[in-house]
Amino acid sequence: MSLLITNIGELVTNDPAESGDLLGVRTDAAVVVSDGLVEWVGSAAEAPAADEVVDAEGRAVLPGFVDSHSHLVFAGDRALEFQARMAGESYAAGGIRTTVAATRAASDEQLTAGVARHVAEMRRQGTTTLEIKSGYGLSVDDEARSLKVARQFTDETTFLGAHVVPPEYADDPAGYVDLVTGPMLEAAAPHASWIDVFCERGAFDEDQARTILAAGAAVGLKGRLHANQLGEGPGVHLAAELGLAAVDHCTYLTDDDVHALRDAGTVATLLPGVEFSTKHPYPSGRRLIEAGVTVALASDCNPGSCYTSSLPFCIALAVREMGMTPAEAVWAATAGGAAALGRTDVGRLVPGARGDLLMLDAPTHVHLAYRPGVPLVVRTWSA
Amino acid sequence: MSLLITNIGELVTNDPAESGDLLGVRTDAAVVVSDGLVEWVGSAAEAPAADEVVDAEGRAVLPGFVDSHSHLVFAGDRALEFQARMAGESYAAGGIRTTVAATRAASDEQLTAGVARHVAEMRRQGTTTLEIKSGYGLSVDDEARSLKVARQFTDETTFLGAHVVPPEYADDPAGYVDLVTGPMLEAAAPHASWIDVFCERGAFDEDQARTILAAGAAVGLKGRLHANQLGEGPGVHLAAELGLAAVDHCTYLTDDDVHALRDAGTVATLLPGVEFSTKHPYPSGRRLIEAGVTVALASDCNPGSCYTSSLPFCIALAVREMGMTPAEAVWAATAGGAAALGRTDVGRLVPGARGDLLMLDAPTHVHLAYRPGVPLVVRTWSA
Ligand SMILES: [Zn+2]
Ligand SMILES: [Zn+2]
Repeated sequence: MSLLITNIGELVTNDPAESGDLLGVRTDAAVVVSDGLVEWVGSAAEAPAADEVVDAEGRAVLPGFVDSHSHLVFAGDRALEFQARMAGESYAAGGIRTTVAATRAASDEQLTAGVARHVAEMRRQGTTTLEIKSGYGLSVDDEARSLKVARQFTDETTFLGAHVVPPEYADDPAGYVDLVTGPMLEAAAPHASWIDVFCERGAFDEDQARTILAAGAAVGLKGRLHANQLGEGPGVHLAAELGLAAVDHCTYLTDDDVHALRDAGTVATLLPGVEFSTKHPYPSGRRLIEAGVTVALASDCNPGSCYTSSLPFCIALAVREMGMTPAEAVWAATAGGAAALGRTDVGRLVPGARGDLLMLDAPTHVHLAYRPGVPLVVRTWSA
Repeated sequence: MSLLITNIGELVTNDPAESGDLLGVRTDAAVVVSDGLVEWVGSAAEAPAADEVVDAEGRAVLPGFVDSHSHLVFAGDRALEFQARMAGESYAAGGIRTTVAATRAASDEQLTAGVARHVAEMRRQGTTTLEIKSGYGLSVDDEARSLKVARQFTDETTFLGAHVVPPEYADDPAGYVDLVTGPMLEAAAPHASWIDVFCERGAFDEDQARTILAAGAAVGLKGRLHANQLGEGPGVHLAAELGLAAVDHCTYLTDDDVHALRDAGTVATLLPGVEFSTKHPYPSGRRLIEAGVTVALASDCNPGSCYTSSLPFCIALAVREMGMTPAEAVWAATAGGAAALGRTDVGRLVPGARGDLLMLDAPTHVHLAYRPGVPLVVRTWSA
């Protein structure tokens, strides 16, 4: 079964061989997908025959978005907490603990239905590859079942038992780290590809993060980190030192942090929906790019600090607030997300890559920033 | 033909009689629309029979959005100008003159197709009433045909010959005002309900605005103004003095301006998509609301300063950037927009109002701000 998409006004390939620009843009293009893989990329005038033909009528076609950071396994919402935060009011209810309690109380079927709904919503907005973390179970059974639920939707599952210390371990954080690196890891590992730690003042410190990542590595889990979201700290440097694929948030960085990321080749994943939804200052994508750091954009979709699932929205914010060009932002949400997951089969449209594409109701990728908030993704194909 | 929507988790009526809060929220509600009008609002348990029944399954239902400010009659786009502006670079091409040239060169059919596409896009995002301005024709024939095109889509058409002085009158702005108030007005008036002036340094000054609004009033056109977008100026005060329904932008206001708006009952229409897309500072919705001014939110959808068509996006910005609560922002995009157009038949869901409604894939209106960028409007009904 082969699919030809032709009369593409602008095809973003992310293939440096395709043209001189960052996005490897080809105009008046066509692409053939066969058995789930990109088979051919070329000019519309030379397009071969295929079983199914779609006329893009001059619209832009891009690689599907790669969202390398989401927390979709949860129950309940925290709309009232959001509303209080926007009004500058304190809110008595328990923040993340509210979601932990609701998630523990939910059935597997409820959790699965919630993930399915959010994955469908993401797909309508162009996301074709996504990572999903646990982290609202925080018990052996609830972390394991969170990952089992996530695994039904993606192979990029991340064990985040070290999200926060749950209430029942409030007086014994060391005991919680023992649990995370012991029985919880054992139960989680069969369903996870990655291990992640929220390395931040008030969550887990550098030593704890090191211990947890080492335990994960010992059972074959690749490491990633949440770090430097609320202030400078050791997390970003640790990620670089360990050569992790990515470190996420990166809102507060020293020059040393930036150089360490560049030298290690660790991707800085920026999550501007968080800054939008918490009224915190945005990180500078420009600074990172000019220093030679690879930047990814991801949604961080979660019910607390950032409940957007929209990579088009993150792209618009990256351009408005983070000094990135539309091309850099689109690259970061496609090839950058792929790099953050250590993937080369997604995030670009070259022969042999996965046939994951999206079509915009717009002639170029620039419209993703030029037309903020508008649902421009009209069609998505996924292998 | 009657429609019953039942099991509505949260029905926003904007009816002060309905409940004590701004939005007149009713939970576990139902609404009946018959022959295009709201016939009944009440509790789901008491819902009457109807020809068609929609089960909202706990979702929120709101009045359709009322977008009181858009410039949809144009050809071409200015994506490259946007891109240069975001990068802080100057851009040699001609700004609004680019759009004027493209619009003049387009056929009626092309202009109509463009408006149709944008109106459909707005409707998918919940807008059920919209105003459309001319202002990219700037000749007698091109303004008249712009309004004729707009009239196919809405009765709320606005003659904005006084958008900018076109190149051919660059040396004779007084001559252009004579044209606008003479032959252009005569040709435009049969197709317009409103007359508008861009009253701003570099566009039209207070005296010119007065002259143009008076000429419009003499042939039965109601007045509105673009004012105080780029700096303080006389426009807002003039709008209040003349008792206009609305004055739009209101980014830079003195305390006197605020008091004048309150005393006159003139609606301040805020257009936060413009500030997002131009990197200018946002106006404070909070200041206006606390002073007792009626605030509307509108898109200002246009290819230059703001190419969003999304009132959900404007609501999220109003909450993030303008100090408005989610309820105030939703009110401003519904009842506020209606007030800005002098309408009482839209923007609220009470018996006798138009049956214009939208349904969110969310339990409450708060999610429009809590979930920025996500296309939450799943269904729209319009009389
Ligand atoms: Zn996160
Ligand atoms: Zn305008």
